[in-house]
Amino acid sequence: MSAARGVSFTLRWARVPKGRCSTRPSFTLSAAAARRPFSVSSAVGADASNKVQLTAAAYPHIKRNPNFAQVTEEHVRFFKDLLGADSAVIDGVTADATDDLAPFNNDWMRKYGGQTRLVLKPKNTQEVSKVLKYCNDHKLAVVPQGGNTGLVGGSVPVFDEIVINTSRMNNIRSFDEESGVLVADAGVILEVADQYLAERGHLFPLDLGAKGSCHIGGNVSTNAGGLRLLRYGSLHGNVLGLEAVLPDGTIVDSLSTLRKNNTGYDLKQLFIGAEGTIGIVTAVSILCPPRPKAVNVAYFGLESFDQVRRAYKEAKGHLSEILSAFELMDGKSQRLVHQSTGNKRPLEGDYPFYCLIETSGSNAEHDIAKLEGFLEHVMSEGIVADGVLAQDETQIQSLWRWREGITEALSHLGGTYKYDVSIPLPELYQLVEDCRARLTERGFVGDDDSFPVRAVVGYGHMGDSNLHLNVSVRQYNKEVEKAIEPWVYEWIAKRNGSISAEHGLGIAKKEFIGYSQNDTMVKLMSQLKKLYDPNGIMNPYKYI
Amino acid sequence: MSAARGVSFTLRWARVPKGRCSTRPSFTLSAAAARRPFSVSSAVGADASNKVQLTAAAYPHIKRNPNFAQVTEEHVRFFKDLLGADSAVIDGVTADATDDLAPFNNDWMRKYGGQTRLVLKPKNTQEVSKVLKYCNDHKLAVVPQGGNTGLVGGSVPVFDEIVINTSRMNNIRSFDEESGVLVADAGVILEVADQYLAERGHLFPLDLGAKGSCHIGGNVSTNAGGLRLLRYGSLHGNVLGLEAVLPDGTIVDSLSTLRKNNTGYDLKQLFIGAEGTIGIVTAVSILCPPRPKAVNVAYFGLESFDQVRRAYKEAKGHLSEILSAFELMDGKSQRLVHQSTGNKRPLEGDYPFYCLIETSGSNAEHDIAKLEGFLEHVMSEGIVADGVLAQDETQIQSLWRWREGITEALSHLGGTYKYDVSIPLPELYQLVEDCRARLTERGFVGDDDSFPVRAVVGYGHMGDSNLHLNVSVRQYNKEVEKAIEPWVYEWIAKRNGSISAEHGLGIAKKEFIGYSQNDTMVKLMSQLKKLYDPNGIMNPYKYI
Repeated sequence: MSAARGVSFTLRWARVPKGRCSTRPSFTLSAAAARRPFSVSSAVGADASNKVQLTAAAYPHIKRNPNFAQVTEEHVRFFKDLLGADSAVIDGVTADATDDLAPFNNDWMRKYGGQTRLVLKPKNTQEVSKVLKYCNDHKLAVVPQGGNTGLVGGSVPVFDEIVINTSRMNNIRSFDEESGVLVADAGVILEVADQYLAERGHLFPLDLGAKGSCHIGGNVSTNAGGLRLLRYGSLHGNVLGLEAVLPDGTIVDSLSTLRKNNTGYDLKQLFIGAEGTIGIVTAVSILCPPRPKAVNVAYFGLESFDQVRRAYKEAKGHLSEILSAFELMDGKSQRLVHQSTGNKRPLEGDYPFYCLIETSGSNAEHDIAKLEGFLEHVMSEGIVADGVLAQDETQIQSLWRWREGITEALSHLGGTYKYDVSIPLPELYQLVEDCRARLTERGFVGDDDSFPVRAVVGYGHMGDSNLHLNVSVRQYNKEVEKAIEPWVYEWIAKRNGSISAEHGLGIAKKEFIGYSQNDTMVKLMSQLKKLYDPNGIMNPYKYI
Repeated sequence: MSAARGVSFTLRWARVPKGRCSTRPSFTLSAAAARRPFSVSSAVGADASNKVQLTAAAYPHIKRNPNFAQVTEEHVRFFKDLLGADSAVIDGVTADATDDLAPFNNDWMRKYGGQTRLVLKPKNTQEVSKVLKYCNDHKLAVVPQGGNTGLVGGSVPVFDEIVINTSRMNNIRSFDEESGVLVADAGVILEVADQYLAERGHLFPLDLGAKGSCHIGGNVSTNAGGLRLLRYGSLHGNVLGLEAVLPDGTIVDSLSTLRKNNTGYDLKQLFIGAEGTIGIVTAVSILCPPRPKAVNVAYFGLESFDQVRRAYKEAKGHLSEILSAFELMDGKSQRLVHQSTGNKRPLEGDYPFYCLIETSGSNAEHDIAKLEGFLEHVMSEGIVADGVLAQDETQIQSLWRWREGITEALSHLGGTYKYDVSIPLPELYQLVEDCRARLTERGFVGDDDSFPVRAVVGYGHMGDSNLHLNVSVRQYNKEVEKAIEPWVYEWIAKRNGSISAEHGLGIAKKEFIGYSQNDTMVKLMSQLKKLYDPNGIMNPYKYI
């Protein structure tokens, strides 16, 4: 893998050849990088034998709810009769199925370990309804699960909750090329949906690293953010309709394909980001924009965060409707990627900040002209110190690797304390500086192996005010952790930020919700949870 | 007022002079047209003496809820003490204030007449909270009211409900130029907010005819659609945070300014489009895009609805990110405008369909080139028969009048039965044809005064699948009405359309919700209403 070598702005940055116009098929890197945004080892997680630690052991204060029934042979018989096909039930109750159950009990990071003995894979909404009604009637707790690519332990059991997996519900129900509205089962894989749309000149308005595995029902249930949000907006705007099943088996059929429908409360919104705690999303209807015909990527170095802010403002002004990504990476993050991969860096000098800008438009010539205008402006004003513009698809992918490869690079260097947060833009990077100062003051940070902390790194989706604060450690260290938490959450709360920008609450952040939501909001949320799930069987021990 | 006379495509359609680049300040027409999208006279509404008919008389089956208290002198004293300022209370309980109360009792169409004797104008959220708590404790019914520009009688009382008007809560709380996030009180007038943003290079992502009067809190409460939805998306995506007061006085402080915040149920969504039935929105936080530097408008004639569909598809492809409106007008609607205004028509020939396309972008030269590419394509393919491109701001406004002037033109010709509906795009215009055939078959339609129906007309926001079906009548006629309703709702229901695309339910469509929402959805909505407003004091007799 070689680093991108576009022509430097300071010399003459290159025009993208006219007529290239191809859409980058995916922002994903190698499969490993794409699927592993977080390091495998962690404060909780896999032990020395590489067996995944039970979540129940990592969170000893969480006790199994004694109101829930245990799964019996009779229950299993019912589900087998109901779902028919052998492949629809993984039965660890009447047989030994530990290995078969493992992929459903453990998250892909091997950080959270559940203890389910039963996995159900209904193939349609009616089956989900019957399964849930039975579970509710019998007080059997369940965990809805899509592609199981989450980052906060939300899609795996804690104890013996039954996993209801959506992988067999994978039909694209309809697509209307005129309106761009796709209707699809919850279990359709994001990349499959996007590929289907690509063949029809459209684009799924969401993209993320796990696209090859994640299910669109899971994306909606977790209100996934990802790479296209800056341009196409959130799922709250793009999801036009939704079908879901409540714990009592009620099918909520709100699968509208209309852009405008003002006939009552927009209940579907409650399921977007509810992480399967009030029902299971079984299908979605989503507005898909035309696929951009031209994509360009530029990467540049800047001398300060103030300059990054100025560059972002200029990018919004000059690139406006074609700006599809404005990503921030600090100097340390880029040095670590270099150190880890050995790849030649895109720019000659070393800068405290780097940005990656992507444009997506319908006319390559216009887009490059706009980008040219933007780059000339930011260079002549001294906002940007140096930069490169990708000249082809390969260079586009290479430049993206300097942004998307940070997680993988960090994971090769030891452990990482990771915080995915939203902060109002003016103070976005201040958190990294304050955290670095705090840990340095305490004598934790240094270049040799006697210091627990290797680096405090910041990067993220500048355009979404979404920072990833990463503390790279040589080994996990309780003292370091205590110096960061809850200080980091308090810091965010003071600025009305969010302790979870796009990853959700799951089990990882359940207890910290109070830092981003006031008591009234938490109370109203609990009230809603009780309304829809009075027995509390839906994805228990998590969320609120 | 003269008609737009751009150069016809068939000769040579004109380039917009380079450097024009001004943003059309507003899509509104003359004040009268802007403020009167619906005809004044109606099946219900003003009687011969021009006194507004009481809604209670027009809907005799709706009875005052006897659980509600009557407003007493003691109540009035409490509110006067609480709100202080004289201007904060209009008191028709202890004094005669009929004239002062009229603008709050009647909607601007003079179609709905309420009987309140008390209007309260709290000036901040705390006051709203105290007012609502008092009303809830004393079982006093209330109607939240913003600019009172609604079309379905949602913002005026039916009986003696207390009006809580937001006009004194009109501060812009903050605006962050970097993120484009505006935080403002509910009572800020939409045009004031947009003007404030214009001075800072940004745009309110919503525009509609009543912008000079409507309040942004009302816009959010009714999930207003309007003219910019095609480009900027719905309020469900653009509203980032919201502050509201529940009937029991609880302040729901969810006024986040973050684009990403996945920490629990997105409760604020419930207030968007709830029409004041579960609480009063007191402030909103909204994402505002950069203001476009270039706006272009084209108007053309087409031979069939199939050609309109093809043109829309090509517009999406060629204009993609700069397409900001694609409006449909049928031939009859344009002939009626001509007949009513006497203005010279933009095109020489007469076509069964017309479209108005608007682009909004950041680069005038690029935009015109894209529009040129689109127009050359649709002309050479024979999709579009003829067209004009506005050459300056005046022509832009003139062309828009052929779309926005339809309502006013119709109102000059007699009465109008109006239906604001969403229908999947392929059948969008079929409703107009079926309705016309149905009324013609029954002998209702004809050119001379012996026929009750003058014309069946269709127009609307093609880009949003939002049709306005208008039946222009010489006088209101129960037989005609019975031939249309409930047939029109059944027709829409069969196609999973919406009986209210952007105007909401209010009192006008309350009883028809079943045509767009199934029993389960209605039940779930009622459940939610009971949860938040157990005494039912919030905007009673309306919505669900």
